[in-house]
Amino acid sequence: MSRALQLIPVTGLGEIRRGDDLASLLAGAVELQNGDVVVVTQKVVSKAEGRLVPIDHDDVDARLEIVMSESVRVLRRRGDLVISETRHGFVCANAGVDLSNVDQGWAALLPEDPDRSARRLRDRLRARTAAEVAVIVSDTFGRPWRRGVTDVAIGCAGIAAVLDLRGTPDDRGRTLLATEVCVADEIASAAELVMGKASGVPGAVVRGLDPGWFRPGSVSQEVIRPPAEDMFR
Amino acid sequence: MSRALQLIPVTGLGEIRRGDDLASLLAGAVELQNGDVVVVTQKVVSKAEGRLVPIDHDDVDARLEIVMSESVRVLRRRGDLVISETRHGFVCANAGVDLSNVDQGWAALLPEDPDRSARRLRDRLRARTAAEVAVIVSDTFGRPWRRGVTDVAIGCAGIAAVLDLRGTPDDRGRTLLATEVCVADEIASAAELVMGKASGVPGAVVRGLDPGWFRPGSVSQEVIRPPAEDMFR
Repeated sequence: MSRALQLIPVTGLGEIRRGDDLASLLAGAVELQNGDVVVVTQKVVSKAEGRLVPIDHDDVDARLEIVMSESVRVLRRRGDLVISETRHGFVCANAGVDLSNVDQGWAALLPEDPDRSARRLRDRLRARTAAEVAVIVSDTFGRPWRRGVTDVAIGCAGIAAVLDLRGTPDDRGRTLLATEVCVADEIASAAELVMGKASGVPGAVVRGLDPGWFRPGSVSQEVIRPPAEDMFR
Repeated sequence: MSRALQLIPVTGLGEIRRGDDLASLLAGAVELQNGDVVVVTQKVVSKAEGRLVPIDHDDVDARLEIVMSESVRVLRRRGDLVISETRHGFVCANAGVDLSNVDQGWAALLPEDPDRSARRLRDRLRARTAAEVAVIVSDTFGRPWRRGVTDVAIGCAGIAAVLDLRGTPDDRGRTLLATEVCVADEIASAAELVMGKASGVPGAVVRGLDPGWFRPGSVSQEVIRPPAEDMFR
């Protein structure tokens, strides 16, 4: 736990189109090593998977219709802003429907199954590079009580989403009572620091993470809070 | 924006006691450079500032009393778990009152003014090292709709808490509509990846961040969402 980490931006992928082989593009842009975690933004994954729908950017009603079709439940609404639960179980603004960094006339939707997107990308990266890497698909979410967005993980493969430290002794030798750390979200946030929102850097490599964190992993199974536990839905 | 970052754990500070000079300890543990961001956990800041209160660890009522005395409003309660708003305006579990990694019989409270704690530590680090560094005080918070905790910033000095990208063009040259990124929280989360909850690493240095992000900064002014904006309080 006491070694330095590196966060390496991945650049030069060019514009991503439906059907593009993200694994080849990533493997060509950075020399991957065993134990690397490759973080890619939802935007490029959605583009490669063709998760784009036509939209008139000035038509607020059309945008709202897409947001509603991607939602299973609306939690709050204020003007154009809808806070809803997506079919995946994510609670976020506008069901993740995004108009930035896509061509005029199109909106990007979230991947259908971001864990599956991560698994597929990981399989292809391992096949192409022979490096044992993990993959996180990231997106940008707001928070109810804190201003500003941060990046979180919406899918992962090959790395724990939540690390369970219950039963681990603290530095006094007492057992930590209830500490489950969402390392996937922390990795996504770390990666955002070298990606930025406007700079066209669609990925990053996080190098040097604890080898003990590498296991199959799933955001949908580990991170999404079941309604029964939820105090704010 | 497209350079690698380093996350360096800071170890060997020893046990922190009231009145300890954290700046000297940090400066002795790592060679600081211009542009470094020093992230320290709330726990060591609270200890150095003497923000500890005696408590019987097995007395649930006594613990609850301390939590309530640190809160201005309770949002939800379920069994032992209280989600409340602290005097600072943070919404978190148990008002940040923490029993882990402190001596038996004591609880650590949040610093009275974590931005001020960060400013003081930064002033002392600059005086001691002549390096232009920034400081973030981090703590570990849960999230309503996502399992697992992540580290966030509760105080900062010398670095933007929230980066305002509104007006910045996206990679199509269109203006990004509403993107304010809470880089202070992302930096705190990144630092946690080399600190861990049980490993006794109370700080980290983040090296290589965009020089444009360095300005006075304040979590309380930039990150805490005013009640008028809040849809979930």
